[in-house]
Amino acid sequence: MTRETMDVATEALYERACDCGIETGLDRLEAQQPQCGFGQLGTCCRICYMGPCRIDPFATDGSSRGVCGADANVIVTRNLLREATGGAASHVGHARHVALTLRDAMNGRAPYAIVDRAKLLSVATGLGIAVEGKADTDIAKEVVDKALEDYGRQDGEPANWVAFRTPPKELEMWKELGLVVSNVHNEIEEAMHRTSGGNDADPVNLLLGTLRMGIADGVGLAMATDLQDIMFGTPQVRGIEANVGVLDANKVNLAMHGHNPVLSEKIVEWSIRLDDEARAAGAEGMNVVGVCCTGNELTMRHGVPMAGHNLQSELLLVTGAVDAMAVDVQCIWPGTVKVAECFDTKIITTEANVKIPGAMHIPFEAANADEAAEKIVRTAIEAFVARKGKEVSIPQVKASGLAGFSVEAIVDVLAKVDPDNPLKPVIDNIVAGNIYGVVAFAGCPNPKIRASEMTEIMAKELLANNVLVVTTGCTAHILAQAGLMSPEATEKYAGDGLKAVLTALGGAAGLDGPLPPVWHMGSCVDNSRIVNLLAALAGTLGVKLSQLPVAGSAPELVQEKAVSIGSWLLALGLTVHTAPVLHVLGSPVATKVLTEDLVGITGGRAYVEYDPKKAAAGLLADIATKRAALGI
Amino acid sequence: MTRETMDVATEALYERACDCGIETGLDRLEAQQPQCGFGQLGTCCRICYMGPCRIDPFATDGSSRGVCGADANVIVTRNLLREATGGAASHVGHARHVALTLRDAMNGRAPYAIVDRAKLLSVATGLGIAVEGKADTDIAKEVVDKALEDYGRQDGEPANWVAFRTPPKELEMWKELGLVVSNVHNEIEEAMHRTSGGNDADPVNLLLGTLRMGIADGVGLAMATDLQDIMFGTPQVRGIEANVGVLDANKVNLAMHGHNPVLSEKIVEWSIRLDDEARAAGAEGMNVVGVCCTGNELTMRHGVPMAGHNLQSELLLVTGAVDAMAVDVQCIWPGTVKVAECFDTKIITTEANVKIPGAMHIPFEAANADEAAEKIVRTAIEAFVARKGKEVSIPQVKASGLAGFSVEAIVDVLAKVDPDNPLKPVIDNIVAGNIYGVVAFAGCPNPKIRASEMTEIMAKELLANNVLVVTTGCTAHILAQAGLMSPEATEKYAGDGLKAVLTALGGAAGLDGPLPPVWHMGSCVDNSRIVNLLAALAGTLGVKLSQLPVAGSAPELVQEKAVSIGSWLLALGLTVHTAPVLHVLGSPVATKVLTEDLVGITGGRAYVEYDPKKAAAGLLADIATKRAALGI
Repeated sequence: MTRETMDVATEALYERACDCGIETGLDRLEAQQPQCGFGQLGTCCRICYMGPCRIDPFATDGSSRGVCGADANVIVTRNLLREATGGAASHVGHARHVALTLRDAMNGRAPYAIVDRAKLLSVATGLGIAVEGKADTDIAKEVVDKALEDYGRQDGEPANWVAFRTPPKELEMWKELGLVVSNVHNEIEEAMHRTSGGNDADPVNLLLGTLRMGIADGVGLAMATDLQDIMFGTPQVRGIEANVGVLDANKVNLAMHGHNPVLSEKIVEWSIRLDDEARAAGAEGMNVVGVCCTGNELTMRHGVPMAGHNLQSELLLVTGAVDAMAVDVQCIWPGTVKVAECFDTKIITTEANVKIPGAMHIPFEAANADEAAEKIVRTAIEAFVARKGKEVSIPQVKASGLAGFSVEAIVDVLAKVDPDNPLKPVIDNIVAGNIYGVVAFAGCPNPKIRASEMTEIMAKELLANNVLVVTTGCTAHILAQAGLMSPEATEKYAGDGLKAVLTALGGAAGLDGPLPPVWHMGSCVDNSRIVNLLAALAGTLGVKLSQLPVAGSAPELVQEKAVSIGSWLLALGLTVHTAPVLHVLGSPVATKVLTEDLVGITGGRAYVEYDPKKAAAGLLADIATKRAALGI
Repeated sequence: MTRETMDVATEALYERACDCGIETGLDRLEAQQPQCGFGQLGTCCRICYMGPCRIDPFATDGSSRGVCGADANVIVTRNLLREATGGAASHVGHARHVALTLRDAMNGRAPYAIVDRAKLLSVATGLGIAVEGKADTDIAKEVVDKALEDYGRQDGEPANWVAFRTPPKELEMWKELGLVVSNVHNEIEEAMHRTSGGNDADPVNLLLGTLRMGIADGVGLAMATDLQDIMFGTPQVRGIEANVGVLDANKVNLAMHGHNPVLSEKIVEWSIRLDDEARAAGAEGMNVVGVCCTGNELTMRHGVPMAGHNLQSELLLVTGAVDAMAVDVQCIWPGTVKVAECFDTKIITTEANVKIPGAMHIPFEAANADEAAEKIVRTAIEAFVARKGKEVSIPQVKASGLAGFSVEAIVDVLAKVDPDNPLKPVIDNIVAGNIYGVVAFAGCPNPKIRASEMTEIMAKELLANNVLVVTTGCTAHILAQAGLMSPEATEKYAGDGLKAVLTALGGAAGLDGPLPPVWHMGSCVDNSRIVNLLAALAGTLGVKLSQLPVAGSAPELVQEKAVSIGSWLLALGLTVHTAPVLHVLGSPVATKVLTEDLVGITGGRAYVEYDPKKAAAGLLADIATKRAALGI
């Protein structure tokens, strides 16, 4: 990413960083060049102390195997499974944390409540819990028991959330393939075991293990979304703003960064409660803004402004206007602390297992949630007092749009067209070709790829071809910042068919214009919402997910979590585009299985393309093939 | 390892391999040179797709941090925790497998039984289970419940096996340090989560996480040992033979390789049952031999010959005399299949998660244990028929000695000296200095270090200085092959004080000579036996483990499992010697904490020395310091 290719906000903040002598990720990426080719190919093995071993694909000197005899196929597929395991562990850990919070709340040991009773009942019913005549608290406890059972059972039965949230045809397919996950913790243990020295050396078996890990990841995603909706409410469509311009120099800017709404919901609550204190301290009030997935969670449920995606987490601090950035888990760059030290900004870590030297640590647990949240907000107010009067530099860049497209919210909108069969308008328009297909964007901004506006250009190409775009995670930030979540974007970017559909739906929904062409469906765990939506479509049509004219894309993949999410989608039978390419090119077996053979197994296919227009064209061709097969 | 430095058996087989054009690990190690320095320093990060990043400790170009801002301390300590996680996952997975087998057996669904009722009662009692008036089956079911609870509980209470097997002073220390493990699966999930991108960036916190992972590993070790003893019997002292010369050209040689006696016990049983078939096929009978830790398990309980350590697993096949090598989990080199293809040898994998292309796969589960074991033995007999009459080359090298030094067996011997207080003779002699100290050898043979006879020379140096050596794992193979488990070795290598003690004990035990100076205590999971022995000594003396004149050594460290075992010993407060050095030298924080600061935390200390005589001297100095502190 060079200055020439930066967006306005990034360029302004990057220049300020350079002027102040502040190092950011863009500098470090440059300093890291050239990056290790073995690592990129996946052929570096550091698993035992006879190594490290590296397989040079062009070697002719006998070094085509590691000391133990593992070849590139083994090394690559072991490494890939461990990447997926890191991702799945993050998501099932997140979900477990939410489940334990709900448990503690229902037992009166944590200050949280059931906010969405309808969701509680629908989740409970979906899990096979009889709800009649039971108190909500007791129903919720049973839901928690079902959740924790997926971490503890040793009976080999399908995990509750696998049985609950997997479409029937895919569940049947997984049973035939021996891929049904029972206990997500068993999966993580077994994956780490089989990839340790001298265990699984069958690359195809290991790739199947990666699909299993994807399925375990899906349990984490779906469980987190379901339980969060119960405790914090199911998102509804609402107006939002995005980009660094949502910071306000005259307010106490408290940026929430991370993933778990158990923390951020309390921060929102306490920011309202302590708004007077902020004013008494000379501010024009509290201004909670969201970064990364916590930003998505908060904007989906409360319309909290989305200050920036992950790659902007350092640059936001360069404004000098962020008084505190409180973080929980995942995607927190250690570099943020170094930037914060140049200003009055406090970085506040909250989790016992996520600390950063130089950051302030305020332990946050469900039981002490109020005390901790209060302390965090007060810390931000104090930092504002220290900052007051000093120069800040907030690029006045922000976009507005709509977010909150949970499946429930979508169905609510659609029900206004056809109350008896809400999905019918969408399906009819898919069949008619007005909606040519659906592509889900997920994942991160990657500084290696950001310069090409990969996500934005791909999305615009797809929209122009009447493909509806749904999105989660940091790609949602990117697409919101690009203005693609606004009703105006439908006029500007959507093809005629899609425009007509969205305009009709907007009218039916009582909006003052069309629905936006890109639907913000939430945080990374909310990829579960996308799968639920696709499952509903597939169910209504009576087809497998792999037959739908849909695809997934992590156009700027960064995290292990994207690998595990992608593995879930591959297990479900979807075509999944990524850039950059997974660390698999060193393995002919992995490359072939993921890009070719898998189609004959689950229906899924990995697809790699770095050029945004070509990538969009590739997905359109994939959709065309699927439409043809469906005869539409 | 050059030919000049090879032992006789290795040299003979290596030469044959070269003559036949067979590649082995020794060749591949050479071809892999030079190995990656970043990997060896631990400063290579492949966790996200902004990387791979590498920290050059000498860099002056700004590349001292990865793209996210992680520095060498973060990268090294994350990598170390993941190594320990791979190890702990292997051990707790092993233990869980044994627990599920016992559960299935007690429910009549698997052909295993309670072989050691005394052990069942002592384990049950130790776990707080009331045993009076209960059937053994019911007691065993309760033991299984306690075991599985350590994988499923979400109540934060100490794991049952932590409470049961941790000495009281160390348990208290861990409580103060916040290191008590509750659920081993939670630990694995959290470790993979906190080491994924943008989570824990505090190297000290991550190092404490590695200690926790060590404690989780200890749960796996202790549980596996306890349950295996219940199902297969607690080892008693018996005669054994070791090295490749235990193969017999005229018999059906069936090598058992791996770790889990659930498989190998059945193979021993069926080898006896099918011995007549072997004879009918023209063999002089079945000859089951053990490799790696399965070898240790079998020799400890049945006196099955120890054919070779892990580094010999390929070379054994070069004899052409191994008819089948059946494997379960861990330390199985993929390279074995390539060697086997040069002969009539069948490599038989048995576990769903451990397959090797080119190997025969016979699925082994507890429920079908008899059928699978029968099939494996028959496969070996068939392979013998194919081999019969062909040239084989078995170096006639083997050593004899005694094995089976479980804590119970040791106490039985000591009780013949002092029935009321069996440990008194040992403690008195430690105090008197006749036993200057105890050093535990564990871990693998590492081809990088094997040439220096690291393990043998260190052991001989220690013995000459009256240090009793106990051992497990592949170092047990090495020391058995060196003749150090024979009574004669006491005469030859032990210092005068130690010799006198071992001679007296041998006499009391009714042996025809002294006890050997190196006590074989089992497989890698049986490092739990060593800790139990030390705990008994510390308890009798009323001191912490860290105060005892004892130390651990992985003199030729290879596997992640050694990292997790070592972390457990460090958490318990022991000095732990390793060669090669852990992948931590790129981190000043990790290096200092592990080698210095940890002494003030748990009492443990990591110590690195590649020269065997200097390493022995270093441990002797450590023991001297501890003796002085005790005033003995």
